[in-house]
Amino acid sequence: MQLPIDIEKRSDISLQDQIMTRVRELILHRKLVPGTKLPSSRDFSKQLDVSRNTVIYAYDRLVSEGYLEVKGRSGMFVSAQIPENALNISTCNVGANARAFSLTSKRLLPVRHRSPLLYQRLRERIELDFRIGRPAASSFPERLWTRLLVEKMAGSGRRMTEYGNPAGLEELRVAISDHLQAARGINAHPDQIIVVAGCEEGLNIIAKILTPAGSTVYVENPCYKGVPFVFESYGAKVVPIPIDSEGLCVDRLATRERGIVCVTPSHQFPIGVTMSLSRRLKLLDWVNSAGTYIVEDDYDSDFRYDGSPLTALAGLDKSGSVIYIGTFSKSIGAGLRVGYLVVPEELIGPTREAKALLNNGNPWLEQAVIAEFLASGGFRKHLRQIRQTYLKRRNTLLEQLRLRFGNIDILGEEGGMHLTWVLPKTFSNARAIQYECLHRGVGIYSIDDSPAIDFDNTHFRERAVFFGYPCLSEGEIVTAVGRLADAAADLG
Amino acid sequence: MQLPIDIEKRSDISLQDQIMTRVRELILHRKLVPGTKLPSSRDFSKQLDVSRNTVIYAYDRLVSEGYLEVKGRSGMFVSAQIPENALNISTCNVGANARAFSLTSKRLLPVRHRSPLLYQRLRERIELDFRIGRPAASSFPERLWTRLLVEKMAGSGRRMTEYGNPAGLEELRVAISDHLQAARGINAHPDQIIVVAGCEEGLNIIAKILTPAGSTVYVENPCYKGVPFVFESYGAKVVPIPIDSEGLCVDRLATRERGIVCVTPSHQFPIGVTMSLSRRLKLLDWVNSAGTYIVEDDYDSDFRYDGSPLTALAGLDKSGSVIYIGTFSKSIGAGLRVGYLVVPEELIGPTREAKALLNNGNPWLEQAVIAEFLASGGFRKHLRQIRQTYLKRRNTLLEQLRLRFGNIDILGEEGGMHLTWVLPKTFSNARAIQYECLHRGVGIYSIDDSPAIDFDNTHFRERAVFFGYPCLSEGEIVTAVGRLADAAADLG
Repeated sequence: MQLPIDIEKRSDISLQDQIMTRVRELILHRKLVPGTKLPSSRDFSKQLDVSRNTVIYAYDRLVSEGYLEVKGRSGMFVSAQIPENALNISTCNVGANARAFSLTSKRLLPVRHRSPLLYQRLRERIELDFRIGRPAASSFPERLWTRLLVEKMAGSGRRMTEYGNPAGLEELRVAISDHLQAARGINAHPDQIIVVAGCEEGLNIIAKILTPAGSTVYVENPCYKGVPFVFESYGAKVVPIPIDSEGLCVDRLATRERGIVCVTPSHQFPIGVTMSLSRRLKLLDWVNSAGTYIVEDDYDSDFRYDGSPLTALAGLDKSGSVIYIGTFSKSIGAGLRVGYLVVPEELIGPTREAKALLNNGNPWLEQAVIAEFLASGGFRKHLRQIRQTYLKRRNTLLEQLRLRFGNIDILGEEGGMHLTWVLPKTFSNARAIQYECLHRGVGIYSIDDSPAIDFDNTHFRERAVFFGYPCLSEGEIVTAVGRLADAAADLG
Repeated sequence: MQLPIDIEKRSDISLQDQIMTRVRELILHRKLVPGTKLPSSRDFSKQLDVSRNTVIYAYDRLVSEGYLEVKGRSGMFVSAQIPENALNISTCNVGANARAFSLTSKRLLPVRHRSPLLYQRLRERIELDFRIGRPAASSFPERLWTRLLVEKMAGSGRRMTEYGNPAGLEELRVAISDHLQAARGINAHPDQIIVVAGCEEGLNIIAKILTPAGSTVYVENPCYKGVPFVFESYGAKVVPIPIDSEGLCVDRLATRERGIVCVTPSHQFPIGVTMSLSRRLKLLDWVNSAGTYIVEDDYDSDFRYDGSPLTALAGLDKSGSVIYIGTFSKSIGAGLRVGYLVVPEELIGPTREAKALLNNGNPWLEQAVIAEFLASGGFRKHLRQIRQTYLKRRNTLLEQLRLRFGNIDILGEEGGMHLTWVLPKTFSNARAIQYECLHRGVGIYSIDDSPAIDFDNTHFRERAVFFGYPCLSEGEIVTAVGRLADAAADLG
């Protein structure tokens, strides 16, 4: 099979990008329908008269973005489900999604939204995968969990058949309140806590009540894709603000109009830096004087290896300006779909209404089990155990990287579940090393192949490589870094 | 304590309504803070110089809307959580919620949304409660469910820690597809099925992709509150269309502009009528020629007692014009928070993207257990059993009502989980009989105290009383209808 594709050899656009764009267009316009097998990289490179690697890289990008899928040894196919049209993420084209449907079309046209691709099919796994944001599956407390499930199920008929409080199960909100007090220095009444189905849902609730169409939302650059995607789906204007080694460059907000500010102070996503105390105080000051809110996503705060964690913004806040997002996706597991918001008192009503309007609350059983897990001390013990495991894995990774590459530039190693290597100028760029590793069965990630987005092409886009280390054993980490060294050597 | 309230004896507005409105204002303006005890109905009626019943009715309305709560015998208090501002539901004030925040206010003001109040605190239960939309707690298959939970948990580490497919667990979508084929005559590929956290979330997804601000949505009048509330929260214009004994008056759509049409054809919510086949075909025709979609909420279709169920609109549809919403909230339990959409092929992509953007999918464990429950035949058996139970309860209710009140006008008794008695003109209105029953420990419901909304004051608002019968035993039903007869006699 030959694909109807022409490429322009003397274009400014790289051959790889041209191939990617053309194939993607064929898929989006249904010239290539789901399930279609693509030509092998060998055949396709002959057809186009380009190097085979160029085709391989283009295919890899299309796979990582979900347009193509590899089926074992039988080749490359158009995905059964075409993903989000999330390719054009280099600029923030807010409003593009808010268009009303065309009145001239025969059929009402659906509005498409960009959504982060967090789901990875099991059969697409990479042998040694430093994928970020995944806890170790082996650490899940399966036996204890099963026991708690059975306990909670006894006499549960009424809880299973009735609607629960959309804001969340009371005992869970009490347990979260206690946990936050002890672990994060946050004094929150259980009424201020709204249980949500993960961070995305928390952002939707915030967007629904605080950022109607036309309002401004400041995000870190780079940041987690979900943040701009959710807010732009409500018609808000998303404005990226740079980060440096102290976190968000708060001074850049000084003269700007009022808007919600979204930050990840504990372990900036994806770079990993911790927001300094002086920046935290400055940010609280600005938000207070502007009369707006901070959204503090504390996704990775459960793991701190070096020094003490800084008090959360929500703990420092004296004026009710911080909306805190917490999650059990990293500390227990994403399969639970349980997170929570902590909101200032005046937002309790609107937040509860928005949650009830979205889905009338989370399932009862998960909530009941997590509540018991927290209240019984099981969670504290679980965190202590996995923190030990993750610390050893992190140490091995740091040691191996330094052994192979010398005194390199690492960010975000003090906490969380991944670290960032900022590649030196003498090295190939992040994506090249990523692909070279992919061919060796090792998954490391550049921004473009992560759930992160870089709005203005910061140096991180070219230079940052992420290593999520919880899921690999120390032995596997040694092997993986060895292969990475080979890959780097091959790239020269 | 005396409340700072004046009422106007010669006003057109009833004394009861005036008291309600004034107390609500005090609460909303925080003059009465949560936890405040209200004067007894005796004291308050003396203060205002009105009958004690007038105060009791006003208090009851405020309780049923969540502004006040009864604490055992210690009296009436302002609720700890003030609900949705859902009082002004007599007209559809779309757009009121879409206002941008005020730029002059010191603090960004949250947008408030109206949300249906489905949650009822356990301590507020009524002794003999015909509350609608609740399955019998005793029917929940607790032992089988626990066994399935334990089975699924074995070796589940990876499923608990990883993100699942936001569209839903594949085995569950396959099982739902098989169920729909057999039970509802719908041929849907599993890819067309999107697992959602209940009907509300399904409506949010539809609103997000198909009804941007300014578009039109047709709803049945009366209908489930959640439908207009969700669409208006996205800025859509909600237009009520009357229903009659054949369901939606489709002719009323003829000359209207294109818009999504939301219907409950199996068992109209809340009235209970079944949409006739000719109306179904007419509606499909109109939607097809207008180039728009039907949203078919098939919430109560699992229970049909007399005759065969009609094929769902989604089963009759040949042109991909129907979005079907199904739920396990009625057939298994609302505590699960699992429902599903079945969408035409061209909406698969946008629907999946919207779901991922909302919350990245449902919890894994519930999905895995429901999938097994469906695939193993457990669900079919469960439905058979509860259908038998509900049928007996329905028959007892019909028999008792006819015994006490003669040849009365009942609607919606052929299926579902509740029926409607349309009171004769010679009777007091629905709300009066409801309150009179409340004082006797019997919960029956008028539209205003149900999750339904009536836009133009149809005769149903004054005359319809709903009886949800699954949760009461036959003996309890006999007692309850006896007390209802006493209440009716007392009202004269």
